[in-house]
Amino acid sequence: MPDTTIPQSWEARAEAASFFGFTDLPSIHARGTVVLTHGTGPYVHDTNGKTYLDANSGLWNMVAGFDHPGLIEAAQAQYARFPGYHAFFGRMSDQTVQLSEKLVEVSPFERGKVFYTNSGSEANDTMVKMLWFLWAAEGQPERRKILTRKNGYHGVTAVSASMTGKPYNSVFGLPLPGFVHLSCPHYWREGRPNETEAEFTARMAQELEDTIAREGADTIAGFFAEPVMGAGGVIPPSEGYFQAIVPILRRHGIPIISDEVICGFGRTGNTWGCETYDFMPDAVISSKNLTAGFFPMGAVILGPELSDRMQNAAEAIEEFPHGFTASGHPVGCAIALKAIDVVMNEGLMENVRTLTPRFEAGMAELAKHPHIGEWRGKGLMGALEAVHDKDTRTPFAADLSISERIANTCTDHGLICRPLGQSIVLCPPFIMTDAHMDEMFEKLEGALTQVFKEVG
Amino acid sequence: MPDTTIPQSWEARAEAASFFGFTDLPSIHARGTVVLTHGTGPYVHDTNGKTYLDANSGLWNMVAGFDHPGLIEAAQAQYARFPGYHAFFGRMSDQTVQLSEKLVEVSPFERGKVFYTNSGSEANDTMVKMLWFLWAAEGQPERRKILTRKNGYHGVTAVSASMTGKPYNSVFGLPLPGFVHLSCPHYWREGRPNETEAEFTARMAQELEDTIAREGADTIAGFFAEPVMGAGGVIPPSEGYFQAIVPILRRHGIPIISDEVICGFGRTGNTWGCETYDFMPDAVISSKNLTAGFFPMGAVILGPELSDRMQNAAEAIEEFPHGFTASGHPVGCAIALKAIDVVMNEGLMENVRTLTPRFEAGMAELAKHPHIGEWRGKGLMGALEAVHDKDTRTPFAADLSISERIANTCTDHGLICRPLGQSIVLCPPFIMTDAHMDEMFEKLEGALTQVFKEVG
Repeated sequence: MPDTTIPQSWEARAEAASFFGFTDLPSIHARGTVVLTHGTGPYVHDTNGKTYLDANSGLWNMVAGFDHPGLIEAAQAQYARFPGYHAFFGRMSDQTVQLSEKLVEVSPFERGKVFYTNSGSEANDTMVKMLWFLWAAEGQPERRKILTRKNGYHGVTAVSASMTGKPYNSVFGLPLPGFVHLSCPHYWREGRPNETEAEFTARMAQELEDTIAREGADTIAGFFAEPVMGAGGVIPPSEGYFQAIVPILRRHGIPIISDEVICGFGRTGNTWGCETYDFMPDAVISSKNLTAGFFPMGAVILGPELSDRMQNAAEAIEEFPHGFTASGHPVGCAIALKAIDVVMNEGLMENVRTLTPRFEAGMAELAKHPHIGEWRGKGLMGALEAVHDKDTRTPFAADLSISERIANTCTDHGLICRPLGQSIVLCPPFIMTDAHMDEMFEKLEGALTQVFKEVG
Repeated sequence: MPDTTIPQSWEARAEAASFFGFTDLPSIHARGTVVLTHGTGPYVHDTNGKTYLDANSGLWNMVAGFDHPGLIEAAQAQYARFPGYHAFFGRMSDQTVQLSEKLVEVSPFERGKVFYTNSGSEANDTMVKMLWFLWAAEGQPERRKILTRKNGYHGVTAVSASMTGKPYNSVFGLPLPGFVHLSCPHYWREGRPNETEAEFTARMAQELEDTIAREGADTIAGFFAEPVMGAGGVIPPSEGYFQAIVPILRRHGIPIISDEVICGFGRTGNTWGCETYDFMPDAVISSKNLTAGFFPMGAVILGPELSDRMQNAAEAIEEFPHGFTASGHPVGCAIALKAIDVVMNEGLMENVRTLTPRFEAGMAELAKHPHIGEWRGKGLMGALEAVHDKDTRTPFAADLSISERIANTCTDHGLICRPLGQSIVLCPPFIMTDAHMDEMFEKLEGALTQVFKEVG
């Protein structure tokens, strides 16, 4: 006799044994989970045989789609060759050595050093530890504060969540002390009445200057920024933002870390977001596209100055006491070597550039809707922000869950996109074709029309 | 013409582009790095064709060796089927659902819920965030302190490093405030003159009681312990330790988290270390053996009470705002499903039990050496602690780097073992044969004899 206490459907089984993160629980209770079995190009398929165009690239990262033959082959070959090792005690795999060389080669730096982690969260957390270690070794142990921006997203470890400028982290009693959040350089939302974009940027720069003066430059360890804010809602900086703030940070000797977890490897149409916005950081944080989502991996890439200073500081105590078991995993490194090649040399980044005008045109068309306040984006990442009143930019009432409604309606129609605040975020895989783009916009337009009609 | 500025050897290439973690830099400068290309059973092979018996199982984790056909096949098959997805927004892969069910099934709990991370560090960091979230949701936001033990190792994110009770974390200005380190329950090293082991255990329990009284139970979020301390030097608890402390924690309503990153899945001869030491935790932290080192993965497994309390707390705010991009990665889950099967059902855990008496006998034999103060261990993990004077237990002078010397000499002879403090740690793969055990002890004995002769 079957045990009827065991839930039988995939959806119920998923709920029974999993504690969900970043999941709207009312949506799950109303609609059930979605259990996926496989993918085809930019599409994923669930246990009920339903197909979805994933305009989210998984989670920004599956940029080569869900069945890229070259990446599958690279992973399978390395599993056959050497399926696991670490990078402690001066031992590491040959794949790890090759990836470090490649990462320095394609980095914004003429030389540098690489440290591996398993995620962007760990890479940001590691970079904070590196800065704390470095300043203490150089006789300035009080330089511990970390500057980031509101709506910046840097991860979910307690420290990287403290860097993340989202109000939801208050439920953990975060941020920890010493994490200072500057304003979000989002001109459309944060600009004052009659303030020009240039004036807004100047105000952002002045706020940074004032914050450094207030906190004391000699208490600040570093400044972290995504070139385009990603999980904060796809927010490109205001015009001239990095050109205004970088000299201030330089003048105060504050290291500039470019969090390229989302922007890195092609999302904005260049290898790095800091390239797109024309600034030179002191270190780069990479993850996601680094393995095209085929393996959990993050990397800290130190530029020449931080490499030298960190190496000196470590030599002085004979060991840098930090590292993750799977840091520099040979399979992850083999996959990353292939992913970098696929993105940079097999036409994917080129395709981002080719598709961008069509993407922008599609977004601009949807933004004509009376309930879309703004479309924004760069390269192949974009957001549409819903508003109750377009003129006053008044949001919808929170209890309408407007973006969840839109995203859920899209899911019903076989399109995955992401609700973020009152925005809908799109970050399609780099392998999209014109036909995929048309399908994406058609389904999204249908959902917008339907939902805005429902909410009146 | 070749660019002669490019270093040509693998060893030099490894040094040029990598920032090393947990690596004795003087050893690297004197001896060079070791770059590995592949493995055969418990052996790994370097770019110079040299072979090493890895008595370290990689980093405790490659328990099925370096070319296990079943694990390779499971990884390759899942790459062909579905090479990547996340577990946000109520979507996840079918492999993720199955692994969660399996983890609850093999857990110490009759029911529970699973949350995935990419490492043990992230899993401990996540558990701390869960506890902070939970107590705040239940109206006790001041319950934030975390109790761990000296020599306990819980990871390297800023928070899991704060939990780790090792002095080296002071170089980062860690631990953060609110991380309280109890004494290490290592009777041989920490016991007082004429103190019996039972008296020592009672003192450890009294210290816990006093610490709770001093700090205030209503400021303590949870207690984390490895059943056997791993990276602190393989330190089994004193006799009766967990039986003495668990009732105290229960009486004060302090959740008990068993960090099973090293002990879990067979290392001590049972599925869980808490099974070996006969105590019931409120949650389990798993990693390493979970995928036999074939994929970066960690898991928090919540027992029945914490599952219910966490679910209620999350429902109240509609979302638990936490999660890693690669949480529940389908390839990692497929590999873990296979690894659990291999360890539990294909004879590996059985082999741990079979080999343990021989392992213990070999360690006991080496411990007769006048410069070995103690051998200690459980199941297939053990440490030999070097001492200058066996009677007084006086360590060697630190500048002799005694354990690094022994480990480096072992490496010369084709055996990888790990220096930790003044101890040599062994944690062989579960696939070892009697012949491998003989080779391991023979090479280690040769190295001990050679080094102790050198240092007089």
